[in-house]
Amino acid sequence: MSNVYWYGNRYVSQEEVLISPEDRGYYFGDGAYEVFRFYSGRLYETDAHLKRLWHTAAGLRLTLPFTEAELTSRLEELVRRSGAADGNVYLQITRGAAPRAHPFPKGAEPVVMAYASSVDRPLAAMETGIRAVAVEDIRWLRCDYKTLNLLPNVMAKQEALDRGADEAVLHRDGTVTECSASNLMIVKDGTVRTHPANRFILHGVTRAVVLRLARAAEIPVLEQPFTLDELASADEIFITGTTVEVTPVVALNGQAVGSGKPGPVTRRLQQQFAATLPS
Amino acid sequence: MSNVYWYGNRYVSQEEVLISPEDRGYYFGDGAYEVFRFYSGRLYETDAHLKRLWHTAAGLRLTLPFTEAELTSRLEELVRRSGAADGNVYLQITRGAAPRAHPFPKGAEPVVMAYASSVDRPLAAMETGIRAVAVEDIRWLRCDYKTLNLLPNVMAKQEALDRGADEAVLHRDGTVTECSASNLMIVKDGTVRTHPANRFILHGVTRAVVLRLARAAEIPVLEQPFTLDELASADEIFITGTTVEVTPVVALNGQAVGSGKPGPVTRRLQQQFAATLPS
Repeated sequence: MSNVYWYGNRYVSQEEVLISPEDRGYYFGDGAYEVFRFYSGRLYETDAHLKRLWHTAAGLRLTLPFTEAELTSRLEELVRRSGAADGNVYLQITRGAAPRAHPFPKGAEPVVMAYASSVDRPLAAMETGIRAVAVEDIRWLRCDYKTLNLLPNVMAKQEALDRGADEAVLHRDGTVTECSASNLMIVKDGTVRTHPANRFILHGVTRAVVLRLARAAEIPVLEQPFTLDELASADEIFITGTTVEVTPVVALNGQAVGSGKPGPVTRRLQQQFAATLPS
Repeated sequence: MSNVYWYGNRYVSQEEVLISPEDRGYYFGDGAYEVFRFYSGRLYETDAHLKRLWHTAAGLRLTLPFTEAELTSRLEELVRRSGAADGNVYLQITRGAAPRAHPFPKGAEPVVMAYASSVDRPLAAMETGIRAVAVEDIRWLRCDYKTLNLLPNVMAKQEALDRGADEAVLHRDGTVTECSASNLMIVKDGTVRTHPANRFILHGVTRAVVLRLARAAEIPVLEQPFTLDELASADEIFITGTTVEVTPVVALNGQAVGSGKPGPVTRRLQQQFAATLPS
């Protein structure tokens, strides 16, 4: 890892990033974040990530201290300095440091921190698939904001690992929403189905790419909620995300999904997705 | 303010508290906190706060790096060093620093930070009362854990201020839960009513003290949810909390509560609460 951070309007090493104990990100999780992807040194779907970041910032009433063009330029420079071909740029912005009190502080400056790191494409998981278990979705009701309040996601992910799985499928009272750190789609009788992009799920950039690819390929798409029972009887299940791309789920709660191997629609979407990547 | 922190197993100044950008408290809000109260230099209801801290830590599967006795000794020392008579000790524990990934990290050490500060009793607000407005409760479903995921509380509080009020009364689909940073009680026909201590509210230490005092005074108590309509027709409304103690709500959504002045049951509970304080 390159250890180059964008912080305090400078490129510095991680050791030079020293967060105040009064940073509202630390007290309250009062901040937004985004994970940008790059392939072959080139940022992927940047506009969609930027749009989501601005959506989160608007929801949090957080004034971003840069324009889209300025931020993009910083991201590109971080990618360049990382020396990595494929990787992620992690970016977070908090409301700044101030004595602890819930209301927005007067005069606090947002604290921005970003760094790029090498992240390989998840080729093995995409080939063989992963195991998932159902976990109650106890998150707040604005999951469309990508914020630093990630404790329920952390707890769900850890529960999945403890139960011998790789990812948690979240459900509210039996209605499937998404996963702890990815969106979820099922295939039933040839139709791709996923939860609508409302306040109960993160509006995944890869989710949008995959739905676009499916529609272009004339695969029927249904953005409608479905239940745990419908999940269990799906022909195929896969997750989508910036880092996981299109990864099949081959076991759910210890039971094989469909044939127990990645299905044909998932395979087709994986191939179409791969064709969109910079090389 | 005294500026003495307990951090890294030492007493240091705030300037010496330098949080890693990889602290999971900063990335995920992955930590617990507690606010202890002291009066006349003596901690108040310490056991109840400790019990709640251990409850939160158990819920987060966070191993606290101290015993109750060790922590109490630290808190007392912070109070002493602060030189304050009345104040709060803020304490937070995160799961430690590690490269960003949702699962619990192996080998990370919890990061503990605590400091005492002078906080006066809210005598003016307790005398004249405050104004509240109803705000949708969009928090997660483990509000009984006192965690660093406080963004919805921050947003609700700010909305209340923007609407000309002092505090937000939260409701889920019309059922009143609590406030953004305090519990809520109503009085109707002489009965004190408040949301039961389940996963939808923080189990307030002051809430428990007040309910105990009410029962001792043979004031009927009902721990049952109530609606926004019942709230609007209450004879009295008050909030309870470690810092706000027992503070009347005299206006709700711009309308007077009861007579528009603190009511007799609220006054009685305020007096009884004051009698429990160290002096």
